[in-house]
Amino acid sequence: MPVFLDTTQPDFEAQFAAVLSAKREDSPDVDDIVAGIIADVRARGDAAVLELTAKFDRLDLATDGLAFTPAEIEAECAKVSPEDRAALETAAQRIRAYHVRQMPEDAQWTDPDGATLGWRWTPVSAAGLYVPGGLASYPSSVLMNAIPAKVAGVQRLAITVPTPDGVINPLVLLAARIAGVDEIYRIGGAQAIAALAYGTQTIAPVDKITGPGNAFVAAAKRRVFGKVGIDMIAGPSEILVIADAENDPDWIALDLMSQAEHDESAQSLLITDDAAFGQRVAQAVEARLQTLERRDIAGASWRDYGAVIVVRDLDEAAALSDRIAPEHLELCVADPEALAEKTNHAGAIFLGQWTPEAIGDYVGGPNHVLPTARSARFSSGLSVMDFIKRTTIAKMTPAALRVIGPAAERLAQSESLEAHGLSVTARLNKLNEK
Amino acid sequence: MPVFLDTTQPDFEAQFAAVLSAKREDSPDVDDIVAGIIADVRARGDAAVLELTAKFDRLDLATDGLAFTPAEIEAECAKVSPEDRAALETAAQRIRAYHVRQMPEDAQWTDPDGATLGWRWTPVSAAGLYVPGGLASYPSSVLMNAIPAKVAGVQRLAITVPTPDGVINPLVLLAARIAGVDEIYRIGGAQAIAALAYGTQTIAPVDKITGPGNAFVAAAKRRVFGKVGIDMIAGPSEILVIADAENDPDWIALDLMSQAEHDESAQSLLITDDAAFGQRVAQAVEARLQTLERRDIAGASWRDYGAVIVVRDLDEAAALSDRIAPEHLELCVADPEALAEKTNHAGAIFLGQWTPEAIGDYVGGPNHVLPTARSARFSSGLSVMDFIKRTTIAKMTPAALRVIGPAAERLAQSESLEAHGLSVTARLNKLNEK
Repeated sequence: MPVFLDTTQPDFEAQFAAVLSAKREDSPDVDDIVAGIIADVRARGDAAVLELTAKFDRLDLATDGLAFTPAEIEAECAKVSPEDRAALETAAQRIRAYHVRQMPEDAQWTDPDGATLGWRWTPVSAAGLYVPGGLASYPSSVLMNAIPAKVAGVQRLAITVPTPDGVINPLVLLAARIAGVDEIYRIGGAQAIAALAYGTQTIAPVDKITGPGNAFVAAAKRRVFGKVGIDMIAGPSEILVIADAENDPDWIALDLMSQAEHDESAQSLLITDDAAFGQRVAQAVEARLQTLERRDIAGASWRDYGAVIVVRDLDEAAALSDRIAPEHLELCVADPEALAEKTNHAGAIFLGQWTPEAIGDYVGGPNHVLPTARSARFSSGLSVMDFIKRTTIAKMTPAALRVIGPAAERLAQSESLEAHGLSVTARLNKLNEK
Repeated sequence: MPVFLDTTQPDFEAQFAAVLSAKREDSPDVDDIVAGIIADVRARGDAAVLELTAKFDRLDLATDGLAFTPAEIEAECAKVSPEDRAALETAAQRIRAYHVRQMPEDAQWTDPDGATLGWRWTPVSAAGLYVPGGLASYPSSVLMNAIPAKVAGVQRLAITVPTPDGVINPLVLLAARIAGVDEIYRIGGAQAIAALAYGTQTIAPVDKITGPGNAFVAAAKRRVFGKVGIDMIAGPSEILVIADAENDPDWIALDLMSQAEHDESAQSLLITDDAAFGQRVAQAVEARLQTLERRDIAGASWRDYGAVIVVRDLDEAAALSDRIAPEHLELCVADPEALAEKTNHAGAIFLGQWTPEAIGDYVGGPNHVLPTARSARFSSGLSVMDFIKRTTIAKMTPAALRVIGPAAERLAQSESLEAHGLSVTARLNKLNEK
């Protein structure tokens, strides 16, 4: 059973602080190993990648090649059932439709001083997407990373996915094909990140790398950051459900377990204004934990990091939610829109009892790559914005320079940056000659 | 004299690669020291900050307090000349007008399946801005960091600025007041970053930290990233000027020197389609380097990292510009708009000979905090986007869940995430009962 908290109890603040600060992830320090792998790939390119793949994935790619061939991709995709293929295509279509709307507009205007100002957005030229192998090889994550990149206009999108002992999930390749991925390499680990960032004889370097991975991949992404852009380093998944008594406890229990089953370090929280309902949900969780396939993982997560928090009213729930800044926030209350208005910090909000969080993982349309570990206070989920960048634009006329140039000269002087000032002065002098 | 390159020469690629990869910054490894300082501030709060300030800034704040009082701020601001004040206000007004236009819209729509989708933007609650002390204490940078935060709606904006031996630049305090900064602390270094990230008895923690700093500040920002958001770690400044022969060589020389004077590690590059013009600019630089106040810095930068690159035509110039991905790109050619269209990667573009880059540093309106070290390939300058975050929103109706729920169930099964699927199935079962 998880911990039960009640905001009316005197020790609530201490207990809530413990829930908030529970250290759910203890990453092994692999930084030295990763530094060595990156240096090796930079120095020896393909040869290093081949050696490391032979060592870690027990796979000789010297003859097969680092990349899947079109024929191999075709053969794997043919293994996918029509039902699975249709589900992937439904998901892809909905994710694409949502992300197309995210594309921001360019802007340009001339201000009262005669200066023309604006900005324009351009896509990153080449992006790399890391896809984990094995159990965590999720085709839905391929769609969620690759589609925004392609919607943004990324010309070249490369995927790396390790295939330990040669095993690949056909759905991953099909998802990549549906999303329009251009290159697929069967490599993984820090060596894949190094190859994407620095390039090898076979793999051209990219400008941005996204996608989840283990501690080695995360450490490698941190190391290559600067040389290339990276997305956030994702932590274990989280959900906060705020539910009143007018819900089916089993539905809420399943929503909580759908995060808990991801990882023993996942965190599932319930806030309710009805203590008896909280108990019913906890009982429903226990019942489900008897039979769930991933009951060991889900049970450990719920036991170690789960909590039921009883509040006086929904205003109190909203205030606590902002302190949690959850990755996923599910609002199962009579007026979910009104409650959503009272919250400020969440990666994604799911409104009402007919919107289980799992819909958002697959087919809702919004991205499922979302800020974890309270980072929704300052960051956003993956979007087309991660694959475009803004260039600001300014154009002065002689008249505009006459109006605003003197202020620039003055400030340059005050900062003792003489050449800055003179670059304006020289032009103003020319204007004054006329 | 800087290096002269010519794209028609056989060794051009090797020489250009050397210009691109010149290692201009050799940060001392201060990570262990910084880790110790952060741990100390986390453990002892104000007491640690006071001790470190006494040690590094030779300043006893135990009696004066960590924060500037309103009376102190008032007294310092009164020292600023009316001309400097007017220039700051002109700059602030123009920067604000530009950044107001950056605020993105919320969105909400109902799709053909009956799902209501959208997103909303909310501000970061509290932000901290690091302002360097001493020579690099630029009031313009206070405006460029603080105004976007306030335009974004940040409720609480705190500045830290070290005042070694008690010395403060009054213009920095005035810029902070004009920008609407809420709290100003006279502390600096890694201890200031630690205080902003973790809080002390006096300083409440913030959610996001921006602003430039030395190697200690940069290392501290990297360390607290995750606990709070940070902006990019800025490298030495850069400018690329593309100029045809129809320019005053002295103007172009001053534009190049306005970056070179920032830092010996700055990089100023000229691309021209007229070799003789390139020579004239180089001569004009030498002439200016006789008298510039910061000639030692500017001269070292120009000698070590500057380059004049002669190209066959402007198309070639655009292609090279994209490989450089410059922080600042100045286009002094007959049709700068057409040339801008041919480039993809730059932090900021300045169109035409009447738009010296220095205008953008102070009063143009766009931000002067821009991506360096080729990171314009994948990132953007500072903007209101750095102080807001997006929450995605989804709401299913029973009818919508009936349409798209089965695809989610299917994909959950394929990923062996049973509870995900069951959370949808339980609801669909209820609908099928009816």
